[in-house]
Amino acid sequence: MKQSQLFTKSRREAPKDEESLNAQLLIRAGFIDKLMAGVYTFLPLGLKVFKKIENIIREEMVGLGAQEILMPTLQSKSAWETTGRWDSLDSLIKFTTFYTKNEYALGPTHEEVVSPLLKKFILSYKDLPTATFQIQNKFRDEKRARSGLIRGREFFMKDLYSFHADETDADKYYEEASRVYEKIFKRVGLGDLTYLTYASGGSFSKYSHEFQTLAETGEDTVYVCAKCKVAVNKEIIEDQNVCPKCESKNLEEKRAIEVGNIFKLKTKYSNPFNLVYKDENGNDHDVIMGCYGIGINRLMGTIAEIFNDEKGIIWPKSVAPFQVHLLNLKPENHDVTTFADKIYNDLQQQNIEVLYDDRKGVSVGEKFADSDLIGIPYRAVISEKNGDKIEIKKREEKEIKLVSEKELLNLLHNTN
Amino acid sequence: MKQSQLFTKSRREAPKDEESLNAQLLIRAGFIDKLMAGVYTFLPLGLKVFKKIENIIREEMVGLGAQEILMPTLQSKSAWETTGRWDSLDSLIKFTTFYTKNEYALGPTHEEVVSPLLKKFILSYKDLPTATFQIQNKFRDEKRARSGLIRGREFFMKDLYSFHADETDADKYYEEASRVYEKIFKRVGLGDLTYLTYASGGSFSKYSHEFQTLAETGEDTVYVCAKCKVAVNKEIIEDQNVCPKCESKNLEEKRAIEVGNIFKLKTKYSNPFNLVYKDENGNDHDVIMGCYGIGINRLMGTIAEIFNDEKGIIWPKSVAPFQVHLLNLKPENHDVTTFADKIYNDLQQQNIEVLYDDRKGVSVGEKFADSDLIGIPYRAVISEKNGDKIEIKKREEKEIKLVSEKELLNLLHNTN
Repeated sequence: MKQSQLFTKSRREAPKDEESLNAQLLIRAGFIDKLMAGVYTFLPLGLKVFKKIENIIREEMVGLGAQEILMPTLQSKSAWETTGRWDSLDSLIKFTTFYTKNEYALGPTHEEVVSPLLKKFILSYKDLPTATFQIQNKFRDEKRARSGLIRGREFFMKDLYSFHADETDADKYYEEASRVYEKIFKRVGLGDLTYLTYASGGSFSKYSHEFQTLAETGEDTVYVCAKCKVAVNKEIIEDQNVCPKCESKNLEEKRAIEVGNIFKLKTKYSNPFNLVYKDENGNDHDVIMGCYGIGINRLMGTIAEIFNDEKGIIWPKSVAPFQVHLLNLKPENHDVTTFADKIYNDLQQQNIEVLYDDRKGVSVGEKFADSDLIGIPYRAVISEKNGDKIEIKKREEKEIKLVSEKELLNLLHNTN
Repeated sequence: MKQSQLFTKSRREAPKDEESLNAQLLIRAGFIDKLMAGVYTFLPLGLKVFKKIENIIREEMVGLGAQEILMPTLQSKSAWETTGRWDSLDSLIKFTTFYTKNEYALGPTHEEVVSPLLKKFILSYKDLPTATFQIQNKFRDEKRARSGLIRGREFFMKDLYSFHADETDADKYYEEASRVYEKIFKRVGLGDLTYLTYASGGSFSKYSHEFQTLAETGEDTVYVCAKCKVAVNKEIIEDQNVCPKCESKNLEEKRAIEVGNIFKLKTKYSNPFNLVYKDENGNDHDVIMGCYGIGINRLMGTIAEIFNDEKGIIWPKSVAPFQVHLLNLKPENHDVTTFADKIYNDLQQQNIEVLYDDRKGVSVGEKFADSDLIGIPYRAVISEKNGDKIEIKKREEKEIKLVSEKELLNLLHNTN
């Protein structure tokens, strides 16, 4: 993509009412725009990152055997009354429409839709197990929406729901989903910093689990077990002060922003909706359910919050909007531009994603500053002084190499 | 995809409260589920069709030079008050949240978001023209939501907005967008039935334009000009009774369910938001805007409403969920299943999208009925009596051919 065609521009300063580091960086670099507290627009560069994350998650969900669907945002009052959550969930956005006088909720999660939906298709044990997921915008009337993309009032999530004949099967899937979650965090670049975290289990079991990514600016406190590489949340430590997995007392306090959660729902939602299956003898049983969420906005915000320096974002390769940022430092010069255009075309032809700064009337300093702010993994500079050599630099390193076009293409291919 | 893995099933009957033919067919075949009036879930098969349509539209928008973004559903009261539409648009869904007491509208369209957004980036004439689009769910408090996917309370749209320095440039883009719309309707299979339709122009110009697809069950009456191949809406005919393009009186009355619209917005939205640009002399001018919508649910509903017979849907190839429906009529037989599995694997390896009916315990009649209901362009049958030959039939034709695997692959490749 040619940068001269991009309608967005980087900004010297983030909006004054934006407190979070992730949104400040993402707004300044032109990835997102803030519409109001907790509500953001994804701009062209931001949507590219969004889709990279979305596709990684989708691939892993399909690998888990889950089928993709797309449920509505509007949900019915009656379904939420069936589970008792119409009145009990404070953050639920609910209203009566002016014209048709319908009462709706805006989906913060979809158990109230997916359970009656699957009831139409699950008849017998032969229809189990099954799993379905969607990637969709969710809504929550958050009291505080100050964490940028990490805690929004409108945000995108992948929500997966699984359906089983018994708890053994549900537990097996829960373990599989947990492994797949670890794989997703690894693929988006957060693997080393993300921990399966023990939380209190609520009404169902001793522990529940969530995934926490360590970050200095995190909202939560967790305790990382040096021995078995899990984390434990505050509640559990206050209760027993040992790692619930290996009983080690060697726990280190850290800050961490939850990035994913997995729940054993058991019959909590199947029961009120009478989601049952017939066993081999024709007897009815409640279906056992699990649900597994990952916030896409939250992942993107977390990545920006963690991978940056004083100059801007440093995207992990897998989710970067482009693989290389090609800078033409002298677009007014015919020879320089002919060469830069050639490199741009060759990169495109070889399917290397490239943002080409072909802008005229922009200073060299501004081009470098924008490139650091946007944070594409490689920067390739074409200038008058280097003739047919290209200056190549990794975003997070200082070392600059002078390479030929052939060497550039080889280098970019080998990093893919 | 193996049909045995699909969690959905076809249904003998559509829900009793579903009046529209498109939703009846789509629900029975397992493409969509009705959550409530005007609100539907896209099931795995339906989401495949949805994405085919979405990608055709996206390709054409990118071809028009427009950049994709993703704006929020939640919109602010203040922006809608700025344009005066907070009170004037009856179908606007608006509410105050319980917890944070924020007042929001659910976006039925995005002029109130995109105009102040572009104001942050359009400074001078050098930033014009530009265009941006999104594909996103929209909301409307429709009094009557009886037309299935054709008129919903929640629905997906592609909305494109263009920004220009003067009306000449805006008019030029309007013409280009109009040609691209014709291309989109052609690509999704509605080309022959879709007409650029003259409607009354409101406050801006003598005529406005929309795209109408002829359908016996359509909501609107249009008059098709036999001479110049445009359509004219009722209002205009009542006023002048000649084709506004060629002045022919040879107009034929038809039924037609609008599938796209294009508007010259002029300064209607740029003016209240003070979206201006500086010309070469530093003087401010209002930006000239255009907007261009296509409903994705509506296109999908229209296709189902038009292309069907008494047995079910007949998808145009470009938007079909799969290219071929492979039926194993005897999955209990080892030889038949070995052969059918081989064909399935070979089709997949050659990137031919295939739905494989490998279900056991389902009668031959049921398999044929489901295949007709789902409406995939080709049906390939493996049975005991035909040995290593495959029965191939087009969904809309009666003729059955017996072919070898090689002939099958050739045939399916050549139709792609």
